[in-house]
Amino acid sequence: MERVVNACSIHIRFKSIVKASAVKQKGFSELEDTMADSEHKLHVGIVGGGLVGALAACYFAKRGHSVSVYEYRSDIRKEKLMGQSIDLALSTRGREALRAVDLEDALVNQHGIAMRGRMLHGKNGRLKEMIYDSVKGNCIYSVNRQYLNEILLNAAEKRPEVKLHFNSKIVDADIDQGKLTILNMKNHTTEEVNIDLIIGADGAYSTIRKIFMKRPLFNCSQIYIEHGYIELFIPSGKNNEFSMSGNHLHIWPRDDFMMIALPNEDHSFTANLFAPFKTLDKLKTSESLIKFYKEQFPDLLALIGQEKLVKDYFERQPKTLISIKCKPFHMGKRAILVGDAAHAMVPFYAQGMNAGFEDILLLDNLMEKYNSNLNEVLSKFSELRCNDAEAICDLAMYNYIEMRHLVTKKSFIFRRHVDTILHKFIPNTWIPLYSTVHFSRMSFQECIANKKWQDKVLQRGLWCLGTVLTAIFVLSFTKINFE
Amino acid sequence: MERVVNACSIHIRFKSIVKASAVKQKGFSELEDTMADSEHKLHVGIVGGGLVGALAACYFAKRGHSVSVYEYRSDIRKEKLMGQSIDLALSTRGREALRAVDLEDALVNQHGIAMRGRMLHGKNGRLKEMIYDSVKGNCIYSVNRQYLNEILLNAAEKRPEVKLHFNSKIVDADIDQGKLTILNMKNHTTEEVNIDLIIGADGAYSTIRKIFMKRPLFNCSQIYIEHGYIELFIPSGKNNEFSMSGNHLHIWPRDDFMMIALPNEDHSFTANLFAPFKTLDKLKTSESLIKFYKEQFPDLLALIGQEKLVKDYFERQPKTLISIKCKPFHMGKRAILVGDAAHAMVPFYAQGMNAGFEDILLLDNLMEKYNSNLNEVLSKFSELRCNDAEAICDLAMYNYIEMRHLVTKKSFIFRRHVDTILHKFIPNTWIPLYSTVHFSRMSFQECIANKKWQDKVLQRGLWCLGTVLTAIFVLSFTKINFE
Repeated sequence: MERVVNACSIHIRFKSIVKASAVKQKGFSELEDTMADSEHKLHVGIVGGGLVGALAACYFAKRGHSVSVYEYRSDIRKEKLMGQSIDLALSTRGREALRAVDLEDALVNQHGIAMRGRMLHGKNGRLKEMIYDSVKGNCIYSVNRQYLNEILLNAAEKRPEVKLHFNSKIVDADIDQGKLTILNMKNHTTEEVNIDLIIGADGAYSTIRKIFMKRPLFNCSQIYIEHGYIELFIPSGKNNEFSMSGNHLHIWPRDDFMMIALPNEDHSFTANLFAPFKTLDKLKTSESLIKFYKEQFPDLLALIGQEKLVKDYFERQPKTLISIKCKPFHMGKRAILVGDAAHAMVPFYAQGMNAGFEDILLLDNLMEKYNSNLNEVLSKFSELRCNDAEAICDLAMYNYIEMRHLVTKKSFIFRRHVDTILHKFIPNTWIPLYSTVHFSRMSFQECIANKKWQDKVLQRGLWCLGTVLTAIFVLSFTKINFE
Repeated sequence: MERVVNACSIHIRFKSIVKASAVKQKGFSELEDTMADSEHKLHVGIVGGGLVGALAACYFAKRGHSVSVYEYRSDIRKEKLMGQSIDLALSTRGREALRAVDLEDALVNQHGIAMRGRMLHGKNGRLKEMIYDSVKGNCIYSVNRQYLNEILLNAAEKRPEVKLHFNSKIVDADIDQGKLTILNMKNHTTEEVNIDLIIGADGAYSTIRKIFMKRPLFNCSQIYIEHGYIELFIPSGKNNEFSMSGNHLHIWPRDDFMMIALPNEDHSFTANLFAPFKTLDKLKTSESLIKFYKEQFPDLLALIGQEKLVKDYFERQPKTLISIKCKPFHMGKRAILVGDAAHAMVPFYAQGMNAGFEDILLLDNLMEKYNSNLNEVLSKFSELRCNDAEAICDLAMYNYIEMRHLVTKKSFIFRRHVDTILHKFIPNTWIPLYSTVHFSRMSFQECIANKKWQDKVLQRGLWCLGTVLTAIFVLSFTKINFE
């Protein structure tokens, strides 16, 4: 089995192979001008200036296309208004996408914090480490959403092809003719802009997806899980150092609910309580909250402090967790969805951003392969990406159960050991699920198929082992009896 | 096992039981005034004047509430503008709902056409009858959608409590405060109306559901199947008689696709071709269409005539088939979805209308039980109906496979015989799936559970039978050898 199977493993022409591999090695900068010349120049309208939208702007600009980004919020670089804040965990898919716009180093080496594994916290304060990749030492990187969005916007803005429009809300889109109707939220005027390619990178509550939903043959589902979350903060400890290991993703698994904490650059942690709404509903007073934390997370309570916990907790309302699947990702002749607009997922596999960035890598590969022929690019993008996106949405749901419940089970721990040993001896054949998702670009569907195959092999292996041991036992017994 | 388990089997107070049973026996008319007196009078705004909306208007008016119906189309009684036309098949759930507004007789005895079973047409013209209920003789009734909608609107309009507003499009709704913003499509003015209870009966592409979708914790999926349909017509035959049996639902099952035909009052049939879009895409010329019909439906081609087939077929575009599930059915403090707005389904179990009408029966029971306390009524409606609606959506998907494929399989036919025999001998214990869906008010979830239980019993029964037969064979063989 191939170790790294690209999600966008399309049959590319020899020229494209050379280019793609060159891009991988050197970054875009040396190649961009030669690439754009030969292609039809488009006006690309990107709806949403979040992480995926800003990255898409960089990629399309580098192809020489003219890019307009429409973001309904103000410029976050000036106003620091970001709402979402669960820290992000950057891994291979996201890193590859950032590498091509020369931002990988800033994120991984300068501002990312390597997390080499999970650190599980028992109720009694006992710690248990679970290394993500003890064979190759791969890590995931805790990065700050605001910082990442800022440097992506800066990178996009540097390009002469890109125009960023803030306070610009899309009120309508003609996805066949290619037209966006934009409301300027400062002076309340609307304007219509002709666009060759509309990219809906406008997040889980996407306006572009709502326009798609009016079309026949567009399938879509939005599912809220019955759990919500509340964000909390663990201040830095003595001498402004981390109060726990700064190189782990900390988890307090409690079966039905959990807390997690990711390290920040200032040596604090951003923590989140994930729990069923019915559990959160019971925590309505300071007393009930403190009692709950004393019982469930005593070590965490000591680190946060009762006063801060109460203040932070009751300042916020529990937020919801949505999972969105849709198919296809393109509609009309000129519109496409990427990132959360196409596949918002619960955050438990830390793949929302990584998968969104990988969308842009795939889209860029297809623009190259089909020489910017939108007809082919858009339908191929749906064909290659929709089922894969559905797979990572499902994996993200599964990982919540793994994180809050399975990690404490003996059968799970035993299986992890087996995986680690086999991965060590046959590293290209036996890759654990977590590694295929985070440390390869294997398509998400294949990650699931690979895990199922492993389950089957192990099941049969155990059956054979059982049979052999029984046979040995019977033979020894017979021998004893005959002797 | 109870034979008929009501989908809305809630625990009702003794008073309610007496009333409900009286309603069942005598119709609403004798009871209505006494019922309304004791209840809080509401202004009910029904969005959509289709089948379910018009029925809901009758029910709420009979409770003494003030009812406004907003329909974006013109009055179909004057303009005959109806778009949808697949004939409807009325069965127990729908009949019970119509009985309470004294319309059952008009539909069933005066204008409905009893269909006692399926008539399967082979390629060679061979016919095979499959009676729906050979034990009790239950039928389903082919009714005309336009006629049914007209008499429901007439019944609603007769009530002084009801005001019908046509050409009135809902552009916004405040589902907490209870407010509808209505655009008069004739004079292009908008008005705001205060409403105590907003009922979204506005079909598969519901505006009210779209407003729900903006709220957190509203789950929703829309799935288009990869098959479409085209409506055709079979004219009446000699002496203006039916050209085939007028008491069957005719099916031409061809595995991947099928045609069906339902009898009309004028002795014509309304027929529909259901097929994958890729099959329909191949029928682009008169020649290919006629060749296809000659190969697949030669008897039907003879009845329709080549010229009429070509004309009717190419006058139309294939239509799509959507399945919509959502949860909960209520949002905010004052809004609820019913009918297709809550659970649009593919038409293959003929339960879209029946289930929509049953929604109104349930809603009415709950208004009675909770004395019009919306807080309780709305949440209980979701609790009792959402999973059931999901079940009938799934059953409708399954029945497409049964109708176009399974009905020709020997294993299916054998199972039908077993079901019929068992139903005959233990009619209250063994009720085939089709009968539970069409001829009872068993909750749809229970219909599925009942079928699974039967599958299990039969599987075990067959296993036991096999074992006994093997034992007998072995014993006989041993005896022969010993003799």
